[in-house]
Amino acid sequence: MSSQNSADLLVESLRRATGEANPSLTDSVIPSLLRGIGRTAAALRTAHNVEKAGSENVFGDAQLNVDVLAEQFFREELGACPAVVAASSEEDPVEVSMQSDSIDQEADVYAVAFDPLDGSSIIGPNWSVGSILGIWDGRSALHQDPRKQIAAVLGVYGPRTTAIIAVCVPGREDAAVCIEVGITDATGSCDIIRSDVRLAEGSKTRYFAPANLRAASEDARYMGLVTRYIAERYTLRYSGGLVPDVVHALVKGHGVYLSPVTSGSKAKLRRAFELLPVALIVECAGGQAIDPANGFRILGTPLRDLNETAGLVCGTSEEVERVKAALLG
Amino acid sequence: MSSQNSADLLVESLRRATGEANPSLTDSVIPSLLRGIGRTAAALRTAHNVEKAGSENVFGDAQLNVDVLAEQFFREELGACPAVVAASSEEDPVEVSMQSDSIDQEADVYAVAFDPLDGSSIIGPNWSVGSILGIWDGRSALHQDPRKQIAAVLGVYGPRTTAIIAVCVPGREDAAVCIEVGITDATGSCDIIRSDVRLAEGSKTRYFAPANLRAASEDARYMGLVTRYIAERYTLRYSGGLVPDVVHALVKGHGVYLSPVTSGSKAKLRRAFELLPVALIVECAGGQAIDPANGFRILGTPLRDLNETAGLVCGTSEEVERVKAALLG
Repeated sequence: MSSQNSADLLVESLRRATGEANPSLTDSVIPSLLRGIGRTAAALRTAHNVEKAGSENVFGDAQLNVDVLAEQFFREELGACPAVVAASSEEDPVEVSMQSDSIDQEADVYAVAFDPLDGSSIIGPNWSVGSILGIWDGRSALHQDPRKQIAAVLGVYGPRTTAIIAVCVPGREDAAVCIEVGITDATGSCDIIRSDVRLAEGSKTRYFAPANLRAASEDARYMGLVTRYIAERYTLRYSGGLVPDVVHALVKGHGVYLSPVTSGSKAKLRRAFELLPVALIVECAGGQAIDPANGFRILGTPLRDLNETAGLVCGTSEEVERVKAALLG
Repeated sequence: MSSQNSADLLVESLRRATGEANPSLTDSVIPSLLRGIGRTAAALRTAHNVEKAGSENVFGDAQLNVDVLAEQFFREELGACPAVVAASSEEDPVEVSMQSDSIDQEADVYAVAFDPLDGSSIIGPNWSVGSILGIWDGRSALHQDPRKQIAAVLGVYGPRTTAIIAVCVPGREDAAVCIEVGITDATGSCDIIRSDVRLAEGSKTRYFAPANLRAASEDARYMGLVTRYIAERYTLRYSGGLVPDVVHALVKGHGVYLSPVTSGSKAKLRRAFELLPVALIVECAGGQAIDPANGFRILGTPLRDLNETAGLVCGTSEEVERVKAALLG
């Protein structure tokens, strides 16, 4: 199977989710994001040298350089997509207009909110890290019905370069897709690895990823949950990178990721650049993503400010229900 | 700085540890292992396709193919080193003679014991995985003074390809080195990232990696340790891959990795292919590596059988002492 054919196959799969209303999304915007991921992966591979070029100190500046490069690649790729009319990122949390005002169409235009490189604390030890991208139907991500975020992409930089792509269009929820692809080079060429990423119930091996674990020292309910996972012989997998941690559950078909918030351990996940895209992916895979402070769906609340933060519980639906009962019940 | 110069710099650094007695180790054997790591990294990058070539099922066969490829690369590289007279691996745990009997010298010949690709459970979700290699002075790893394992290499396959190399020659312990390199391609070209990898005490951020955590459900002392780490606000990082977990501590300069053994959770780390090389690396970085069953140094007991297994506690020296007191005191 050639990469060209695989790319066509991907576009075809994505179009099944959108119908005919969003041709630029499937044919141009998502492919441009996969190119951004491919270019970021290529830059990361040689980040030993980036580090040296940047500074003499051991890793602070190297990370910075790679972050800046990833941001630049995604901005360039989005800038070359006429249908992308606005973009904002974790590195630059202001929604910037990407195109001249002459593009006055209202349909098939998009705003993208993204975290170019998530997981800076684990770049040094060479653990997998990721990119998070949410695509909004229309001119802005702000003050919208969250269902207008109709697509999201997680890029995973590890031994391979992979991505999870979800598309869910209002009115076509039954046709929503969640697909894993392997990206083969910096042009974003890809092969489909899993055409139907799905969080299943009743999995034989059960996984848990307890983020912000220090919060358990202040919250007996969180500590109780963790000890219960251990007593029930769940398998621990926690890298500390939001993307690899969530993707682990998606690929294994089971898992729960917990990042509760306490008075001493504040919410630090950004709704625009992290929580909303991750929540769309998890829901499209049949799971749930909720705010542990109140149990509400992450996708249930409009984005009012690009700097909003919250906690997160997501993964296999029955596991999320169980966490909700334990933390809030 | 060109890669050639970097390679020379690496050999020079390694020679400071060996003096003049082991020229083939520094100039040929270790470079051949770095080539094996570079070739394995290149194969992993395209493992999406390896999977397809092998089988239609989703990941079982892909892993198998990549494991087999890594094994083959290291065997080929070692076979091209006249000084390597024996090799054994996790995939094929028999010590096989690599050279004809005509090589009858007794000095500057080596036996290599290795795990070509460790971490198969996390290859699917695209998390970092690794290779583990121990190099023994002489014709065999079996029934030797463990100090005859004079070098070890951990290869890390992540967004980048990196390796930790330790060399410690009996009588020259003060000159032992532990170096982190970035491998830039399949020829094994590399740049030195850290010339002195060191587990420091008094680190501001303290990390713990609780492996075999299910054992805590049967062992109140292990459960007590885990809850104490949480209460004392240690940072959890646990990928489930021995190489990335140990390398995380080495690169951050602090950490403790625990894999206790209970009657219900048996020892599964192989002494020949995992524990002895990891222990040499950790000790060369100033840390400790002990058997949690008895508190003895992993490096204190000769290898009698390639299939021997044990648990492991390793990392920053004061943390290992604390675990020893908690589990055995």
